[in-house]
Amino acid sequence: MKARVFVTLKTGVLDPQGEAIRHALGSLGFGGVESVRQGKVIEIELAETDPARAEAEVARMAEKLLANTVIENYRVEMVG
Amino acid sequence: MKARVFVTLKTGVLDPQGEAIRHALGSLGFGGVESVRQGKVIEIELAETDPARAEAEVARMAEKLLANTVIENYRVEMVG
Repeated sequence: MKARVFVTLKTGVLDPQGEAIRHALGSLGFGGVESVRQGKVIEIELAETDPARAEAEVARMAEKLLANTVIENYRVEMVG
Repeated sequence: MKARVFVTLKTGVLDPQGEAIRHALGSLGFGGVESVRQGKVIEIELAETDPARAEAEVARMAEKLLANTVIENYRVEMVG
């Protein structure tokens, strides 16, 4: 099974990478960009074939390693 | 309108961050992890209200700045 974990900064947490992108887009002439936030996607290929078990396992991985839950949210999506 | 741009390394391009995560998951006792790839998500809030025009604009941003199309693929998703 394949899973995708989306890790994004919580609202209110400063995002310097996102800010840098917003500035760069402005310099390149892209108008109307109100805000930019940058996050991570982690694609994991698992041997596990049961979707529910795989999803629970990936959520544990996110809690333990992939996301810093103090400042980041995560969302797990099973791909198939 | 809000758009998400997913930027991932092309197949065959070495992904040291993904490899580091795979090793770390193994050390933490997560078995059955076959491969891990890490990518970026960029969430952009736009003043543009027309979905088709917004999507085209974001695709141009991805080509020009957000993705290095030599080694990375990107996908644009409109959120609403």
